[in-house]
Parts: sequence; C-alpha cells; structure tokens
Amino acid sequence: MPTATPPSALVLLDYFGIAVFAISGALLAAEKRQTLVTFIFFAVATGVGGGTLRDLLIGAPVFWVHSNATLLICIAAALLVWLISRRWFAGKALLWFDAAGLAAYATYGAAKALAFGVAPVPAFGMGVLTACAGGIIRDLLAGEPSILMRPELYVTAAALAAGLFVALALAGVAAPVAAAAAAGAGFALRAMAIARGWSLPAYRD
Amino acid sequence: MPTATPPSALVLLDYFGIAVFAISGALLAAEKRQTLVTFIFFAVATGVGGGTLRDLLIGAPVFWVHSNATLLICIAAALLVWLISRRWFAGKALLWFDAAGLAAYATYGAAKALAFGVAPVPAFGMGVLTACAGGIIRDLLAGEPSILMRPELYVTAAALAAGLFVALALAGVAAPVAAAAAAGAGFALRAMAIARGWSLPAYRD
Amino acid sequence: MPTATPPSALVLLDYFGIAVFAISGALLAAEKRQTLVTFIFFAVATGVGGGTLRDLLIGAPVFWVHSNATLLICIAAALLVWLISRRWFAGKALLWFDAAGLAAYATYGAAKALAFGVAPVPAFGMGVLTACAGGIIRDLLAGEPSILMRPELYVTAAALAAGLFVALALAGVAAPVAAAAAAGAGFALRAMAIARGWSLPAYRD
Repeated sequence: MPTATPPSALVLLDYFGIAVFAISGALLAAEKRQTLVTFIFFAVATGVGGGTLRDLLIGAPVFWVHSNATLLICIAAALLVWLISRRWFAGKALLWFDAAGLAAYATYGAAKALAFGVAPVPAFGMGVLTACAGGIIRDLLAGEPSILMRPELYVTAAALAAGLFVALALAGVAAPVAAAAAAGAGFALRAMAIARGWSLPAYRD
Repeated sequence: MPTATPPSALVLLDYFGIAVFAISGALLAAEKRQTLVTFIFFAVATGVGGGTLRDLLIGAPVFWVHSNATLLICIAAALLVWLISRRWFAGKALLWFDAAGLAAYATYGAAKALAFGVAPVPAFGMGVLTACAGGIIRDLLAGEPSILMRPELYVTAAALAAGLFVALALAGVAAPVAAAAAAGAGFALRAMAIARGWSLPAYRD
Repeated sequence: MPTATPPSALVLLDYFGIAVFAISGALLAAEKRQTLVTFIFFAVATGVGGGTLRDLLIGAPVFWVHSNATLLICIAAALLVWLISRRWFAGKALLWFDAAGLAAYATYGAAKALAFGVAPVPAFGMGVLTACAGGIIRDLLAGEPSILMRPELYVTAAALAAGLFVALALAGVAAPVAAAAAAGAGFALRAMAIARGWSLPAYRD
C-alpha cells in the first residue's frame, strides 16, 4: 500500500466534515425519537461512512481505525445533540455547516484518491462518494427516502467540487489553490440551492 | 496480493455485465423521475456494485479504481437512458440483456474468486454476489422491494452459473469450456423464468 | 497485514455467533414467505455480515473467504429452518440463543480488532459492529424497520460486552477472563431486556 498522504491542511477539512455529518446523523435520530445509543450509531455511521467507503475502495487503511479521535468526535456530536435541544440546530445554521462540510469532504476525498494513485474519473467519484455516502447510509438506516432521490442540488455540488479539484490538479495547479477553488465552487453551488432553491430538472418521458 | 488474473475472454464478460446493469440502474432512476445526476449515481452503483463487493471480499484491488473506462461506461449508459426514451428499453429487450449479464457476471465472479485462491464454496458465493449485489444495492437506494424478495428465478440462475463453473473448474475442465457451459446454463434457466414464468416455491408454515 | 490471531477459544465464539445469526436471518425469510434461495441469502448475510464488515475495516482477510466451513454452516442453518417448522424456533428459545450470540460476537469482535492493533475506541466499535451489523443488513434487505430503531436494549448490550472487554484488556486482565466477564455482562443485560422489558429512554424535545 502507498504511504503518500495529502497535505495536513486537507486533513483538517476531514475533521470538519466528520463533525458536521455526525451532527446531521444525530439530528435524524432526534427527529425519530431514538435512544442515546442510536444517536451515537447514527452519528458514527453518517460521520465516517463516506470516508470509510472511499478508503476501502482505494485500498487505504480505513482512516478512523488506528486512532481514537475520530470516533470520539462522533460520540461528542451525538451527546451534544442529545443534551442541547435539537431546535437549536433546526434552523438554517446546520444547512450551512452541512454545505461547508459537503464541499470540504468532496474536495478532500478527491485529493486523497489522487494521492493514492487512483485514475482521474474514479478519483472524481471518490470525492462525490466521500461527501454523500454518509448521508445515504444515514437515510437507509433510518428508513428515510434517500438524499439521492431529492431534486435539489446536493450530490451535484459535491460533483462540482470533486470534478474541479481533479481537473485543476491534472492541469498542474498547486493543491492548496486547487482545493480552495474547488471547495469554494461546490459551496457556492450548494448555497444557491439553499438560498434560492436551485434544483436539477427531473426526467420526463 | 496475488497478481493472477483470469483470461481476458472473461474480462469481456465483465464489461458486458457492467453496461447491462448500469442501464438497469438508470432505468429505475427514470421510472422514479429522477435527475441526471441521480441517473449516473444509480448506473454506477448498479453497474459496479456487485464486482466491487466481490473484490473487497476476496482482497483484490477494486477493479474500476485504476482505470477510467468502467465509470465512463456507466456514465454513458446513464446518458443513453436519459436521452433516449425509456420506453425504448421498457420491453422484453432489457430483460434478455439483463439475463445475459446475470449469467456472464456470475460466471466471471466465480472465476475471478478461484483465480485469487478463494475456497470453492465462497467462490460460488462470489459469483452469486457479483451478479446480484448491484441490483440489490439499486433497489435499496431507490427504496424498492429487493430483487431478493421476488419468487422468480433470478438469484437461482446466478447460483446455477456460479455453481456449475466452480464444479467444472474443480473437475479439471478448461476455463473457457467451463465458462461457456456455466453461463449458458444460467442464461437458459433465467430464460425459462422470463418466457414461462418459472419460479421457486415459497415457504409455507 | 498482521498475522496475529486471537486465541482459539475466541474462534469458537465466532462459529456460535454465525450459526445463531444465520438462523435469525432464515427465520425472517420464513416470516416473509420467501423461497429457499432467499433463505440461504438471508442466512449468509446475517450470519457473516457483521464479521465481514469488521474484517474489511481492520484490514484483516475476510474470515469466511478461505474456508468452506462458514458458508456451509449458514446454508445448513437455512435448510434447518426451511425443513423444520419455523414455529419450533418462534418462542423465546431463539431470543435466548440470539442473546448469547450477541454477547459472544461483540466480545470476539473487540478481541480480534485489538489483536490486529486497532486503537481502543475503534476496537470497541468493531465489537458492536460485529454483533449488530448482520441484523442491520438483514433488516435492510427485508425492508423491515431496523433493529437500530427499537428502544429495547440490544445494541447497548453489545456495547457493554465490547466496552468491558476492551477496558479489561487494557487493564491487563488475561484474555479468557476478560472475555468471560465481558460476554457474561453483555448477556446479562440483554437477558434483562428480554425477561423484564428493560429499555433505554427515547429522546424528547
């Protein structure tokens, strides 16, 4: 297995994504009136699900298995939601954090895949998966309609961030610049979906 | 990790299976009136899901991660379904292509597992999984009743192809002959299910 | 990959867990009036699902891929349920076997993870996952509300067993003693849930 790791600035994006997604998992558990154990399970599955799938697919050691920090972040997120009223999170604030997490995670996932020698198209796919798979797993576990099936721009914003990062990296742009541009563009697109209701057209026969 | 690869004739079965399953994923997205991004996600998940699970389980590098071709096939399948009316695919034609993909994929999955030194019973299981897991994942993501729960002969046809290939290979039959016999038998059984409605008896108390 | 293996007494816990969970998978197929092929699929997915996920995450070779025994146990469990009336299993007996399997599997999963050099918090998580993921996959495949979403003490009992084993192992307690104490405590907690209806409080706004 390769030992290359992406720059540590990108690692910070990883932690940020984990915390935001863990909170969104715990919030769904709260909405479903679950127990604290289920809160933690949802926070962990949502927080690390995307990155876990990415690491398994690219043949990297799964990122949270050899340190305690990642799971503790998820457990803390679950406790936070359990203790503080979920109303506190229910407004637009979480949507905006989630948008930032989505853009950060998509960029980081694509960067990590490229660093492991993954080909460009699958590296783009890894970015999308890193950002979206946690939410997909969360919805599956809860028996909710999948985030995949909603017309609003969500997966698309992740695809923009991941695709732009891969394209800029292939063009020789330095990683920090490429990451900032890619995450910024993905966030901006998702922001348009939140603020103005932008969505993709659905299929019609 | 072993570097043994099955003969390239078998690799062609792989590409055929990917394309057929990707189309079936995109068709379900069309039926559910989804967006183009969801079409692509479903095409990819259905097209590569079974083979991905197989590769993870047998410890092989995931087959689509180091080349661009596989994902591009899936994306092309999604675009094809998006652009052409899904009615074009809705008749029996897709069912027959799917039957061929099922038989091909089950045979290929079992052959690849044996080539990686997997024991006979799990190698048989890998064939079934390669053929069926993409469809199972597709149904899970879409919130549809799983293909697993339908009485018609589907998983059973994959089991016939995978089991026959493993048995013939253990008996010393040359791989191309074993593959042709196994895929032919699996296809024939599935054909009987499509043409004559063959099904398995359900459990009764 | 490390070659360390946990003591063989723990391996026996593994086989016991597989058989019990495989039966619970086949019983759900029976309840849903499925075919024999679906019985086998559910028995395998439930029997090996948790351990498979654990092995993939900790980078161990997947435990059932290089021997025929594990899948044959699952297939035998499916045949047993198919042939014998499911009423035979429907009483409290299976619940008690399942409780024993849950405690055994949670302990074994945590022990195997520690043996592979996994950090303590993720090793605890691996115990919970080993015990619960098979049932979660079974419910997902069947379209049932997930075991995760029920208030009764189930995941919690697995967490007690896994957490206690990790804590005792870190404190230097010999593995057989730690395993007996951990599995005993997990079983006792689950027994209270079965016999007295113990459950966790659900979230309230």
